[in-house]
Amino acid sequence: MKLKARILGLEAEKPIVIVNKEDAEDIDVRPLDRVELILGKKKGSAIVNVATHFIKPGEIGLYGEIAEHMEAMHNDEIEVIPSAPPESLIHIREKLSGKTLSNDAISKIIEDTVHRRLSEIEMTAFVTALYNHGMTTGEVAALSRSMALTGKILDLGKKEIYDKHSIGGVPGDKTSMLLVPIVGAAGLTIPKTSSRAITSPAGTADRFECLAPVDLSLEEIKGVVRKINCCLVWGGAVDLAPADDLFIKIEYPLSIDPLLLPSVMSKKKAVGAKYLVIDIPTGEGTKVKTTKDAESLAEDFIALGKKLGIITVGASTFGEQPIGNAIGPSLEAREALSIMMKGKGPADMIDKVTHIAGILLDFRMGNGGKKEALRLIKNGKSYKKLKEIIEAQGGNPRVKPEDLKIGPEKVEVKSGVSGMVGWIDNQSIVEISRAAGTPKDKGSGIYLRKKVGDSVKKGDTLFEIYAEKNYKLERALKIAKSVRVMGVGKKHEMLLEKIPRKIDHPKYFILER
Amino acid sequence: MKLKARILGLEAEKPIVIVNKEDAEDIDVRPLDRVELILGKKKGSAIVNVATHFIKPGEIGLYGEIAEHMEAMHNDEIEVIPSAPPESLIHIREKLSGKTLSNDAISKIIEDTVHRRLSEIEMTAFVTALYNHGMTTGEVAALSRSMALTGKILDLGKKEIYDKHSIGGVPGDKTSMLLVPIVGAAGLTIPKTSSRAITSPAGTADRFECLAPVDLSLEEIKGVVRKINCCLVWGGAVDLAPADDLFIKIEYPLSIDPLLLPSVMSKKKAVGAKYLVIDIPTGEGTKVKTTKDAESLAEDFIALGKKLGIITVGASTFGEQPIGNAIGPSLEAREALSIMMKGKGPADMIDKVTHIAGILLDFRMGNGGKKEALRLIKNGKSYKKLKEIIEAQGGNPRVKPEDLKIGPEKVEVKSGVSGMVGWIDNQSIVEISRAAGTPKDKGSGIYLRKKVGDSVKKGDTLFEIYAEKNYKLERALKIAKSVRVMGVGKKHEMLLEKIPRKIDHPKYFILER
Repeated sequence: MKLKARILGLEAEKPIVIVNKEDAEDIDVRPLDRVELILGKKKGSAIVNVATHFIKPGEIGLYGEIAEHMEAMHNDEIEVIPSAPPESLIHIREKLSGKTLSNDAISKIIEDTVHRRLSEIEMTAFVTALYNHGMTTGEVAALSRSMALTGKILDLGKKEIYDKHSIGGVPGDKTSMLLVPIVGAAGLTIPKTSSRAITSPAGTADRFECLAPVDLSLEEIKGVVRKINCCLVWGGAVDLAPADDLFIKIEYPLSIDPLLLPSVMSKKKAVGAKYLVIDIPTGEGTKVKTTKDAESLAEDFIALGKKLGIITVGASTFGEQPIGNAIGPSLEAREALSIMMKGKGPADMIDKVTHIAGILLDFRMGNGGKKEALRLIKNGKSYKKLKEIIEAQGGNPRVKPEDLKIGPEKVEVKSGVSGMVGWIDNQSIVEISRAAGTPKDKGSGIYLRKKVGDSVKKGDTLFEIYAEKNYKLERALKIAKSVRVMGVGKKHEMLLEKIPRKIDHPKYFILER
Repeated sequence: MKLKARILGLEAEKPIVIVNKEDAEDIDVRPLDRVELILGKKKGSAIVNVATHFIKPGEIGLYGEIAEHMEAMHNDEIEVIPSAPPESLIHIREKLSGKTLSNDAISKIIEDTVHRRLSEIEMTAFVTALYNHGMTTGEVAALSRSMALTGKILDLGKKEIYDKHSIGGVPGDKTSMLLVPIVGAAGLTIPKTSSRAITSPAGTADRFECLAPVDLSLEEIKGVVRKINCCLVWGGAVDLAPADDLFIKIEYPLSIDPLLLPSVMSKKKAVGAKYLVIDIPTGEGTKVKTTKDAESLAEDFIALGKKLGIITVGASTFGEQPIGNAIGPSLEAREALSIMMKGKGPADMIDKVTHIAGILLDFRMGNGGKKEALRLIKNGKSYKKLKEIIEAQGGNPRVKPEDLKIGPEKVEVKSGVSGMVGWIDNQSIVEISRAAGTPKDKGSGIYLRKKVGDSVKKGDTLFEIYAEKNYKLERALKIAKSVRVMGVGKKHEMLLEKIPRKIDHPKYFILER
């Protein structure tokens, strides 16, 4: 059937066409069926939406992407033929029924995902099928490989690539930003790609962007790493394992994360990592609640690493309160820069980064890595490397912590009682911080004046909230007043929670990679 | 944050708004998060989509439904506040994790479904969770009740309501159209609501529409049933259990049907059925392949009926070839009308309808129902009742089979060999028939000149294809030439299929209720 093109000013990220109900019945297609489009020598495949008024009989509405692909103009006559769904849909249905998928089936699904050939319903069916039925290590390995191969590959022509990853979930975690200069100063090659925040106050890319550009091209990254053997860039700019971003769009509204392992490992595969440490923040208020769960997850990563040729070590780290004192891109960049310049800083931050960096150094040295990492902080070599990174990526290496803008809006939250800080609620910290403007407003966030174990006197400032805009500060303060951020009490107070809780967080899900 | 309204001429069937990426980050919402909208005294809840070009910073695009609800005009300033997802999403996540849902949780999900408060991703997660984890009888009963209660209810004020349902899957099945006049002639109350075709050549509503209007209002149905104790109407016109249509939109592209039981029973509950027979067409080429599977499904219906106060009997019927000779709305209406007028017709059709009608009559008579049903066909009382139904619903009771238009395009498909018809492939019949124009073009379809067991001479017509438009006839013929519709061979030929098959049906899924 021939239909007249109407070019719609709509973005879909998918090849979507809209036809009138009448015509859909004549062509014998239903919503979300596929059609083949022919216009002169151009051919294309699209997913059908059906309208009763918006598109008139005899017309076909084309979303931006497919209109561009077909080089279609207003009123072009397009031939529309029903076509079979992509083969990958058959495999999605197989997984939905609990079948184990072959490598070939998995690569077909990932290809169709990346080329936007699957509807939201079909992608959701795949993600929930993975969630419900789980995956064999073979399937996870095939997913990791396919997700890597459908994106760009960073080929440095070197065999000894080191890498680090945190599965996230703790606010204020500046480990990567400190670890890369340390490991780089030790002479190891570490081309670190990081993500921006999804549900957290800041991702490593958001933090480091306060010191230097992070959206480098693949060629620029190669240049930087060849010159100074490390980098701190945003992975999203270079299209590594692009399927992951598309899966996140499905996982986020459902608060499920079945693709964690292939998501992480596909990116490590794409940069050619040979040695890898996985940081698993553990405890109340993080993704992984117990060390037992952390062990089990680490074992999954190790087994998957074996299949992919990546020697992997897991590290379960204490995650029940923010790391260091600063939360929010600029505040965290300040804290990290200060640690590197002075060779000292918050004890938990220093202990964590030297532990994790030490594991990477041990791959080379056998042992003593943690000590060496601390030495590289204290002797200024890490700071020197940090400046090299900043300069190589196009930033100002002479930047000082106080050059980084924070605020200007600020409020101090004080304690109404005296005692000891018994706990800090990560979830509340994240909510307040995001309400204050993170990660978008780089100068917004929270600075903790007290941490767990600290003594507090009535009237002491517990934490400060920073914002760029007044209405966001108000918004953040409103949340700060309605939730319990810190527990200040006597040293041996034993009650953790009264159930049911008075205040509940209707949606809180950590989706960071 | 206040944003300027842009009223979009788009239909979504859901309260969707589009905001620019910048503003989404300021509000701190991601695609598919919820926002609360305030405009003067009007409040509303919407699902957020995010655009980078189509909607500019400071603007908010409103789809038709939410624009109407908010009574929003171009350039109105709308206050946009992030809000928590509906409570039902929490229950969807619980089901996704394998939890059994409470009655309350189920009714929240169904309410939010009917009020279009759930995104496609969330609805897909629910449907796939039901598919993966199954349901307890308690859950199915709660679903049936909620699906009935969120729609209209046909209250006839009588206790003895009889009903019949086929789970579908056999082309040419005119049972309901014959059964209602028979059962009606016996004095039983049977307010039959039927569906239109989803994936088949014709639904009962499509067939009967050739004889009389079927889109009656609830009040009109009441009037008809009070007068003549039965009707044959389209359920879709009266909004019975409307959640079902929304679930079908998810199930269809995935070729899964986890909601079959609550879908059927919610509609029976909505018309107040007390006695019910479920026809389960069984065998190769139908939904249910073996009598064992049919028994198990029937037991599920019976158990569910008990919970809902509906006395249910299942009937597994032979479904390996079309019922009668005609396939397609007009052709089938002709065949049914002719059977009623003459008191005779294709043996399989007569046997099937008297069996099923007999089960309903037995609820009243104890036994002998099948014989009585046959008597009511032969003595013309069913025909008299059929004419009453046609007249009461606004059709012409003097209509003759030859008054119903078929064609005008027609082609005969002849046998190239002599022998006996060993099998007829339902799937091929459906594909050809739909390509010819069914169910939209009422005069299109297939007429079988030979059925299983019939002798065939080389050159005999096996079947005729009818179409209203020439291009559809060509399309149907092309399929007829590429698939094997009938097997004509020697009487004892044993080979069913060579594997792998040469021709495959890339998508064939029966979704009829």
